[in-house]
Amino acid sequence: MRVFEIRERFGLDRLVAAERPDPRPGPGQLLLRMRAASPNYRDLLTVRGEYNPKQPLPLIPCSDGVGEVVELGAGVSRFAVGERVAPIFAQDWISGEPAFSKLRSTLGGPRDGTLAELMLVPEHGAVRVPAHLSDEEAACLPCAGLTAWSALVTCATVRAGDTVLVLGTGGVSIFALQFAQLLGAQVIVTSSSDEKLVRARELGARHGINYLSEPAWGRKVRDLTGGEGVDLVVEVGGAGTLAQSLSAARFGGTVSVIGVLAGRSTDLSVIPILMKQLRVQGVMVGHREGFEAMNRAIALHEMRPVVDRVFPFEQSREAVAHLARGRHFGKIAIRIA
Amino acid sequence: MRVFEIRERFGLDRLVAAERPDPRPGPGQLLLRMRAASPNYRDLLTVRGEYNPKQPLPLIPCSDGVGEVVELGAGVSRFAVGERVAPIFAQDWISGEPAFSKLRSTLGGPRDGTLAELMLVPEHGAVRVPAHLSDEEAACLPCAGLTAWSALVTCATVRAGDTVLVLGTGGVSIFALQFAQLLGAQVIVTSSSDEKLVRARELGARHGINYLSEPAWGRKVRDLTGGEGVDLVVEVGGAGTLAQSLSAARFGGTVSVIGVLAGRSTDLSVIPILMKQLRVQGVMVGHREGFEAMNRAIALHEMRPVVDRVFPFEQSREAVAHLARGRHFGKIAIRIA
Amino acid sequence: MRVFEIRERFGLDRLVAAERPDPRPGPGQLLLRMRAASPNYRDLLTVRGEYNPKQPLPLIPCSDGVGEVVELGAGVSRFAVGERVAPIFAQDWISGEPAFSKLRSTLGGPRDGTLAELMLVPEHGAVRVPAHLSDEEAACLPCAGLTAWSALVTCATVRAGDTVLVLGTGGVSIFALQFAQLLGAQVIVTSSSDEKLVRARELGARHGINYLSEPAWGRKVRDLTGGEGVDLVVEVGGAGTLAQSLSAARFGGTVSVIGVLAGRSTDLSVIPILMKQLRVQGVMVGHREGFEAMNRAIALHEMRPVVDRVFPFEQSREAVAHLARGRHFGKIAIRIA
Amino acid sequence: MRVFEIRERFGLDRLVAAERPDPRPGPGQLLLRMRAASPNYRDLLTVRGEYNPKQPLPLIPCSDGVGEVVELGAGVSRFAVGERVAPIFAQDWISGEPAFSKLRSTLGGPRDGTLAELMLVPEHGAVRVPAHLSDEEAACLPCAGLTAWSALVTCATVRAGDTVLVLGTGGVSIFALQFAQLLGAQVIVTSSSDEKLVRARELGARHGINYLSEPAWGRKVRDLTGGEGVDLVVEVGGAGTLAQSLSAARFGGTVSVIGVLAGRSTDLSVIPILMKQLRVQGVMVGHREGFEAMNRAIALHEMRPVVDRVFPFEQSREAVAHLARGRHFGKIAIRIA
Repeated sequence: MRVFEIRERFGLDRLVAAERPDPRPGPGQLLLRMRAASPNYRDLLTVRGEYNPKQPLPLIPCSDGVGEVVELGAGVSRFAVGERVAPIFAQDWISGEPAFSKLRSTLGGPRDGTLAELMLVPEHGAVRVPAHLSDEEAACLPCAGLTAWSALVTCATVRAGDTVLVLGTGGVSIFALQFAQLLGAQVIVTSSSDEKLVRARELGARHGINYLSEPAWGRKVRDLTGGEGVDLVVEVGGAGTLAQSLSAARFGGTVSVIGVLAGRSTDLSVIPILMKQLRVQGVMVGHREGFEAMNRAIALHEMRPVVDRVFPFEQSREAVAHLARGRHFGKIAIRIA
Repeated sequence: MRVFEIRERFGLDRLVAAERPDPRPGPGQLLLRMRAASPNYRDLLTVRGEYNPKQPLPLIPCSDGVGEVVELGAGVSRFAVGERVAPIFAQDWISGEPAFSKLRSTLGGPRDGTLAELMLVPEHGAVRVPAHLSDEEAACLPCAGLTAWSALVTCATVRAGDTVLVLGTGGVSIFALQFAQLLGAQVIVTSSSDEKLVRARELGARHGINYLSEPAWGRKVRDLTGGEGVDLVVEVGGAGTLAQSLSAARFGGTVSVIGVLAGRSTDLSVIPILMKQLRVQGVMVGHREGFEAMNRAIALHEMRPVVDRVFPFEQSREAVAHLARGRHFGKIAIRIA
Repeated sequence: MRVFEIRERFGLDRLVAAERPDPRPGPGQLLLRMRAASPNYRDLLTVRGEYNPKQPLPLIPCSDGVGEVVELGAGVSRFAVGERVAPIFAQDWISGEPAFSKLRSTLGGPRDGTLAELMLVPEHGAVRVPAHLSDEEAACLPCAGLTAWSALVTCATVRAGDTVLVLGTGGVSIFALQFAQLLGAQVIVTSSSDEKLVRARELGARHGINYLSEPAWGRKVRDLTGGEGVDLVVEVGGAGTLAQSLSAARFGGTVSVIGVLAGRSTDLSVIPILMKQLRVQGVMVGHREGFEAMNRAIALHEMRPVVDRVFPFEQSREAVAHLARGRHFGKIAIRIA
Repeated sequence: MRVFEIRERFGLDRLVAAERPDPRPGPGQLLLRMRAASPNYRDLLTVRGEYNPKQPLPLIPCSDGVGEVVELGAGVSRFAVGERVAPIFAQDWISGEPAFSKLRSTLGGPRDGTLAELMLVPEHGAVRVPAHLSDEEAACLPCAGLTAWSALVTCATVRAGDTVLVLGTGGVSIFALQFAQLLGAQVIVTSSSDEKLVRARELGARHGINYLSEPAWGRKVRDLTGGEGVDLVVEVGGAGTLAQSLSAARFGGTVSVIGVLAGRSTDLSVIPILMKQLRVQGVMVGHREGFEAMNRAIALHEMRPVVDRVFPFEQSREAVAHLARGRHFGKIAIRIA
């Protein structure tokens, strides 16, 4: 089978096509013929060696993807040949609290990921995907979609009438924009691009803030909410944006830390956390039962992930590299078969 | 009546005795003859002008105290003359979520506090205290006691079998040590003093860590918990200790931010919050219903707050100054009448 | 002022118009000029003497209504003259857990209710209502609206993708139908009238079940949900429908008990509660903070309560009597001024 | 291997010793040499054919037990040979919400149970047990212990200062009595035997009520709690006691339905559920992560299950029959090897 793998050392130029022997499913395993994959910022960091420098190579990167079940290992009962499924991000996190033992089973590092024509997963490590989605749309769900869902539903409780602040317009952020509306919340979006803010509004955002022209956007968010602040911030910027996010949150509000796009560490004051009784909540993607709940919501509302651009499999490196430019809106997908 | 107030400008030397006219209760108010008060680190910061530099003066500092109801305003029905009650920290926070409108009603700034012979509170702003407590012990509950209770019970859910890490041996920390055990958890305590660690163990702590000899105590805590980390960190150090606290917490664990003894801001990496799906939870004392629940637990178990030293009313300035030295273990109290 | 009161003894014929002296606001009170009221089934029971036979008379019935603030008592700060507000059902339940002390302060019994030209409430016992609502629509919120909101949001956690079963098409049920959709859930409705089921579908219900032609509707509901059962049943029938409601719920699901339209007691098997780990959750209207959260959701979505018919004030008795016929769809309102 | 099985038809006299071929572990399975088992009331019902009359026979009854890992199937990584483990009640319920798919995997029906010298379980279907427990004590945990833990911790949130009412002194009830105290709650116990009430008090119960002399014990419980009622009732009686349990609960309290010792159906009024906003919560044993949390608590506090009497393996029928007499206090165990 054909795969893309990081070979010998880290670096975008080391993400190369390769041939590996076709795998065969062992007991309890599914063999998937992958149809589409989707890179996340985490995958870019992984390729660059910035996510986990100790990751053994070669590694097939990417956790997001969708495939068709083409062969069943002995004893498999959850799926049948021909079903379309997505592998789950943390293969051993079915439900319940996070744990090291559950989170060391993630795809795209340490385990091989979705940039491959064929893929083996244990039957407990996959879910069916909503029928109305294209393969490219369904491929976006495992990490990007579920992270947004977990931030809004599993790790917080967004409800009708709430206000959610979404930073930027990348994959997770646009999912959060969509899910927040399914839950009955209103959304404020930040971006450096007025054009992207227009698109965000077309997707239903109530307000857009250009953070270049409004660097103290935390205050601006409070102004837009009658001085109150928002119930939830979906924080993808990390250290570079956290101070403004804390400023934007209401008393008793939550800031979901789900990414580090704008930096890993910063000189941070903990005073607002204390004085406003904030909750800063890390979100590490999520578990399978959350994925299944998300799928029910997506199916019920026939929601469609926003796929900005689709690359052919042979251009997988360009797809990952494209993320670095930050020009996308929503998700990027890769057509495998 | 005699009071202590911060007069004209901030500074420990400006905390002076003064005479004010005896107050009379308006409709719905209680007049309390204060018996004891207790300063917290927040009060020290307030006196120094470091808590809220915009605080108008004069101000009677301190939020913790206990008094006897000596007169009722018109329409009061919750209390009778002669009952012993404690004013609550945030006078208008009865229950529910925190809000700016609830948290601007705090004693010891912006409102006058407990360092006074007489005090007026609305009847909704007080609670009865457990009968088995001395006045000095009961005086410790409103801010220090409730903060610890909120961190463990209201803002988290410590349960039997959990492990709680308590930083230091000040007022809130010793309350947290005691409450955690009532809830069935085991406790690890840090201190710079081996002698204080011995006292903490006498109070039931399973393990003590001297953070001077063990500066990477986050790792040490994980070692003491079989590599897992603790369920909850009661974090009073603020910026100066947060990185180690994040290191000490288990996957999915909580770090309760309740103080800034060791600094307000720091160069902080958000990576552990994300990778271990941690919750960093600010705790701003708590509401009256939490206070009442805490009192039920204290009464049931006949728990006694640890009062390290009692100062007479006239030495209130010395009592506050004593906090700055950090030599106390548990709480300091002031005998008023 | 003119009021309707239950005079001397219970019975629909004893609900009569009367004159009472105009009240004046005491300290902390609001004087409201009532614009509209709305009877609930509870009010019908009260008038008949079936709700609380020990209720002293005369009593002004009805808890639902809306009025304009026309005079402020001393010390009022939450409201200004001219604002449109609704009194809250349990006047002393601001937030937090229910308690006897909070729930004995309800309007329409034991306290006088909303069927009056003028009404006194403490300032903490009222909330502003969304501006886009007519008086008649706003009058429906305090008991009927909030009960539905509490069932879905405060006492349960309905989220996008869930399925909610709503029994019947009365006031609370139609609110539940509307709120469930704001929260992203799908709704199944039961009724004895195919015509009402058509109307329910026009309001967004996915499925309607005529319980006359489908007496084992619990099983039918499971069939409609792929054999799973629903996440939440909004149970207004009480004893007469509870067995079918338990049958309709999924494993781990919730049945919110909010009314007893179909009986107070029944021969009930507890086996399904145990075997499916169900939660049977009583809902006693709700607290003020829930009301405020509900109002935010209503305002954001410009949701409009369904007012089936408006009676003039002088026909208040007919309005209450109309409820007994069960022909209404949604709420009935009474125009006062 | 030697087993006890229900053969051909239901009935205590049909619970007979039998020989079956020694099983061998398949991929992912553990072979356990059982050391002890413990019957529950559910097992008595199963033997009588009253639990699930459609259960195919023969069936090895009993879900509670403990054994030693003597052989590992291919790919097992969670356990090593020689470890002492307990099988979990619902073999496929690892964590998260209950579901039909999780709950159809229970031991002692539909799957063969613990009354056997050897037993196969998937590696995910077992947990290590605390080292300080005897085999007989450890054998009590899977169903009886976990049910009590789930009622207090997973399905409710008992905390220090709460009051828990425990009905009777059978296996689950005594576990609930012990766990409630670990959590810092006080306990009230009912029984028909003054002697058992004395024993319950020796185990720490604050109050005992003989329900024969106090048939309206719901009211008595309220009197003992200052008129408030209890936070949680651990309800094992089912239909026969539910009305009194509802009467005993505080406003907003919870009644955990975990057994039907006193009947399956009754003429029940739903009014108290509504008027006191009660939660009636079914508890169907629990999941593996709950088991593991329970074990941490048991180990930390070196808690010991109360084993009333131990029967040798050959008297397994007598052990099950003994439950029917209701003379035991706590659990009954069976020594297998």
